Amino acid sequence: MKLHGYWRSNATYRVRVALNLKGISFEEVEYDLLAGHQFDPAFLALNPNAAVPALEVDGRVMTQSFAILDYLDTLSGGPRLLPVDPFDRADALALALNTIADAHPLIVPRIRKRLAEVHGIDEDGVKGWARHWLTEGAAAYETRLARRPPSPYLFGNTVGLADIAVASHVVAGGPFDVDLSPFPRLKELSDRLLALPAFAAAHPFKRRAVIEQG
Amino acid sequence: MKLHGYWRSNATYRVRVALNLKGISFEEVEYDLLAGHQFDPAFLALNPNAAVPALEVDGRVMTQSFAILDYLDTLSGGPRLLPVDPFDRADALALALNTIADAHPLIVPRIRKRLAEVHGIDEDGVKGWARHWLTEGAAAYETRLARRPPSPYLFGNTVGLADIAVASHVVAGGPFDVDLSPFPRLKELSDRLLALPAFAAAHPFKRRAVIEQG
Repeated sequence: MKLHGYWRSNATYRVRVALNLKGISFEEVEYDLLAGHQFDPAFLALNPNAAVPALEVDGRVMTQSFAILDYLDTLSGGPRLLPVDPFDRADALALALNTIADAHPLIVPRIRKRLAEVHGIDEDGVKGWARHWLTEGAAAYETRLARRPPSPYLFGNTVGLADIAVASHVVAGGPFDVDLSPFPRLKELSDRLLALPAFAAAHPFKRRAVIEQG
Repeated sequence: MKLHGYWRSNATYRVRVALNLKGISFEEVEYDLLAGHQFDPAFLALNPNAAVPALEVDGRVMTQSFAILDYLDTLSGGPRLLPVDPFDRADALALALNTIADAHPLIVPRIRKRLAEVHGIDEDGVKGWARHWLTEGAAAYETRLARRPPSPYLFGNTVGLADIAVASHVVAGGPFDVDLSPFPRLKELSDRLLALPAFAAAHPFKRRAVIEQG
């Protein structure tokens, strides 16, 4: 499999984690979003939405981290990313969408660029925008975590899609100085997740180090 | 089933369409988002994210339109909303997420409110913001439609999740005067979808009329 992504892209990070959890080897191709490489014709041929990640498998290209994770879960082998029970599955999806649909789309480069260039919002304002929505998402996670039975990960002893989303939400908050201290449950869970090999190996900083080493 | 929603909510519209397609009868409860009823303690108990829709089934509450549609597809009976082939399924999810994750979250009331109240953007600016992102999403749909084989709906002869998302994207554009004339494939598909009974009965204007009639 070939993963088209960007080291600092949060959505690409989610896919790297999932591939690691599934034990699938993959090759990575980098597109610098801040330099506009997602608008290169070669990339637009892969994804007309001009967004990473895109996953190439047997000549087919899949886009959207969530769709890719769902696809990986249809393959045999590796731990299941989604619970089998329909209600738990719906809960897991909702927890994932808390960042994949509700928070993360609000802070990606194209949004920050438009806030600055079209609406004249200064750097502090744009950073504050991102921090606000990531903090709202963190608060929603904290409330939802408080309602769940205690367990090592969100759905028992196996890491899944919802955990990947939680970790990615916390990782996304780093550059925007999101303060997790009001959200102890979220902090504890994400600390546990980020220490796992599949997450550590996929971390944006780790990926950047790999690129820099050539 | 009990659907907690709001007549003009686009995400609630998606769930209404899916319930109609599946032939499931449901009761609706209204929360006026513009009046802040999503922050009432009774609603926050259902969904700490303070967002509609929420679907109550056998005492369990599900949130996020996408998770709810996925849940409805696990039930037996009615047409399948997602293709069985894994690649087609991933395509359908990506098409759905083009609006559910990429466009619609950018234009919901909480975003428009923050742009206006915190960042001082005037009414025209906020409307322009929404129109811009819905137009970007429409352009992505047009490109993706051009790449697909001709068929009545996105995946053959049966309406599914991706079609619901396309229809909801077009419906969302109405109040923001999104111009569909540059996107003839999208316009043609959405015209066909909106004329179907399951979509027509679920339309926000139809729902508003039902409420007004008491």
